[in-house]
Amino acid sequence: MRQSKLFSKTRFESPKDEVSKNADLLIRGGFIFKEMAGVYSLLPLGLRVIKKIENIIREEMNSIGGTEMKTSVLQNKEIWEKTNRWDDAVVDNWFKTKLKNGADVGLSFTNEEAYTNILTQYVSSYKDLPIYAYDFKDIFRNETRSKSGILRGREFYWKALYSFSQNETEHNRFYEKAKVAYEGIFKKVGLGDKTYITFASGGTFSKYSHEFQTLTESGEDIIYIDEAKKIAINKEVLNDEVLNELGARRDTLVEKKAIEVGNIFTLGTRFSDALGLKYKDEKGESKQVFMGCYGIGLTRLMGTIVEIFGKEGEMIWPEEVSPFKIHLISLAGNDSEVEKISDKIYKELTDAGIEVLYDDRDMRVGEKFADADLIGIPLRVVSSKKTMEKNCFEVKDRKKGEISYLSTEEIIKKLK
Amino acid sequence: MRQSKLFSKTRFESPKDEVSKNADLLIRGGFIFKEMAGVYSLLPLGLRVIKKIENIIREEMNSIGGTEMKTSVLQNKEIWEKTNRWDDAVVDNWFKTKLKNGADVGLSFTNEEAYTNILTQYVSSYKDLPIYAYDFKDIFRNETRSKSGILRGREFYWKALYSFSQNETEHNRFYEKAKVAYEGIFKKVGLGDKTYITFASGGTFSKYSHEFQTLTESGEDIIYIDEAKKIAINKEVLNDEVLNELGARRDTLVEKKAIEVGNIFTLGTRFSDALGLKYKDEKGESKQVFMGCYGIGLTRLMGTIVEIFGKEGEMIWPEEVSPFKIHLISLAGNDSEVEKISDKIYKELTDAGIEVLYDDRDMRVGEKFADADLIGIPLRVVSSKKTMEKNCFEVKDRKKGEISYLSTEEIIKKLK
Repeated sequence: MRQSKLFSKTRFESPKDEVSKNADLLIRGGFIFKEMAGVYSLLPLGLRVIKKIENIIREEMNSIGGTEMKTSVLQNKEIWEKTNRWDDAVVDNWFKTKLKNGADVGLSFTNEEAYTNILTQYVSSYKDLPIYAYDFKDIFRNETRSKSGILRGREFYWKALYSFSQNETEHNRFYEKAKVAYEGIFKKVGLGDKTYITFASGGTFSKYSHEFQTLTESGEDIIYIDEAKKIAINKEVLNDEVLNELGARRDTLVEKKAIEVGNIFTLGTRFSDALGLKYKDEKGESKQVFMGCYGIGLTRLMGTIVEIFGKEGEMIWPEEVSPFKIHLISLAGNDSEVEKISDKIYKELTDAGIEVLYDDRDMRVGEKFADADLIGIPLRVVSSKKTMEKNCFEVKDRKKGEISYLSTEEIIKKLK
Repeated sequence: MRQSKLFSKTRFESPKDEVSKNADLLIRGGFIFKEMAGVYSLLPLGLRVIKKIENIIREEMNSIGGTEMKTSVLQNKEIWEKTNRWDDAVVDNWFKTKLKNGADVGLSFTNEEAYTNILTQYVSSYKDLPIYAYDFKDIFRNETRSKSGILRGREFYWKALYSFSQNETEHNRFYEKAKVAYEGIFKKVGLGDKTYITFASGGTFSKYSHEFQTLTESGEDIIYIDEAKKIAINKEVLNDEVLNELGARRDTLVEKKAIEVGNIFTLGTRFSDALGLKYKDEKGESKQVFMGCYGIGLTRLMGTIVEIFGKEGEMIWPEEVSPFKIHLISLAGNDSEVEKISDKIYKELTDAGIEVLYDDRDMRVGEKFADADLIGIPLRVVSSKKTMEKNCFEVKDRKKGEISYLSTEEIIKKLK
């Protein structure tokens, strides 16, 4: 894409109403636009990152047998009353609105009810199970305060998968598979070595749930890590009984701040009981379906990546989620020869299937470089009079901090 | 995909609370699930159709220079007050809700305000224009009655592109391009020969807008067509002055019912005036940006396709939007040889990049065929003892109503 056609522009001053690094850098880079506290629109660059993350998640979910669907945002009060989650005294972050006839409806803050209710129409026999289904969806939570940028939005974009199994044994098998798939996701988006599977509260549903916690000083969660044993425990559940059960000792644990980038949860029969999701087993006996849920906030994940890889005035996107693979910067000025060569490599890279953001704008060198730093595409390729004379291009690998001089063919090879 | 893994099931009885053909067939085929009147979730098959439509639209929008982004659902009251569209007396189908601090927020019913407001931060010079940006998004309209299935939802999925030009001349050039792109979309989704560009009211914005109207008896709109001159006029604007202007005559016009599947609209400077979207022209003079909007409801489009191609108990999806290209039906029963051959062709077709729904279920022949009729994939391939003995497969082309006997290679060739 030619940068002259990209309407979003970078800005060098920080927005005054943001305290988080993620919102600061994402707004300055032209990835997001703040509509109000906790509500952001995705500008073209931001949407590209989200789509990359979405595709990584979709691939992993499909590989463990997930089927994608899309549930409505507007939620039927009756269903939530059956699970006792309609009342604002029970769930304090609902957004609610009204139909013209005065009937109350809610805006999805989660999806257990919708999925369980839909499946009551389709599940009757053990032959129908297991079912693994998921949604990418805008989710609405009426947070009282919202100042951590896209880490905790009033409106955000997530994926949630729900599993429906015959019993706990079948459930546990899938739960372990989902853990592996989640590890795959965080590895691919570049957070693998900083993300820990963490024992956390299972709420009213089960003893433990598992959170995926990414270590960073800007995290709101406190977790305890045993590096040697690769165990992580959320502060909420840290007590002697838990330590004993997990074979961990207080004196080998290190306290860390972290952001919860995903969680997986055993739900048991809480929702299938309330909504009547039953099946007949092989003996013809009626049983409750055993459920689990598996969530990831995509916008939060994008924010976490920025918290980890962002610096003052510079972002470095991990390759797999970068909005483009190459930022090609033409320093043609008035030199039509350089312009021709820049156009040529742009075409050649694009023809080779490589996503290129091509800075074809008539601007000062310093501004172009500062822009590229804020946008943060991991490979910066410069085409200038100097490189033309050397019959190559200057390639900066942001992550390694290395500069090399390569031909078009060598650049293509580097990316394959 | 193996049909045994598809949780949605067909149903042979019609839902009692639906009067429209589209909702009836889509619910019976397992494409959508009714959450409440005017609100439907997309089941896996329905989402596949929507994704096909989405990709067709995206391709056309990108080809005319569109850039994709994603604006928030929650809308800031202040911005809508500036354009005088916040008040329920002016816009009667808002859904509104409240933040914890009591502030009112709205749910997007359209996108002019959001786009115009965002661009005030990015447009300052004529060099920044034109801009063509679009969204795929869930839209919310608080309809009083909602009984035409997914043709008029309280929540629906749409695409809207907004154009931002220096002046009316530049705008008109793009407007004509958008017309062609829209024709391309309706042709690709299979509605080309039934869809007419129709002169319609331009509202307070301009003399005319253009609607894309698909002829069908179930349409809510009345349009008048001059077949020879290829002119169509919405009843709302039909008067002598308009006839005169378009060179049409009342006695050659035929009255038809139609569904509006898309519309394009000149907005002029109504929104840029209200929200202060200005630019400096080449002489340094301040000017208002000239706008247009270009909408398509994807869920409505899916519904229209069903109204056109659906029959009692049978759907025939146009190839480009069909959830799968082939419905492979194995009539193996207990014959492991037939099962082996069915598995083999499933793998071969899938390996060839063809999307196949593979009915591998242990069910009666009649039920499998009735299911396939409701799901409506245009090519049905049967693998049975009989076809095995003939060393081929039975291929039914639903659209042509033809049956032929082909090898795997011939089927693959047919689809390329």
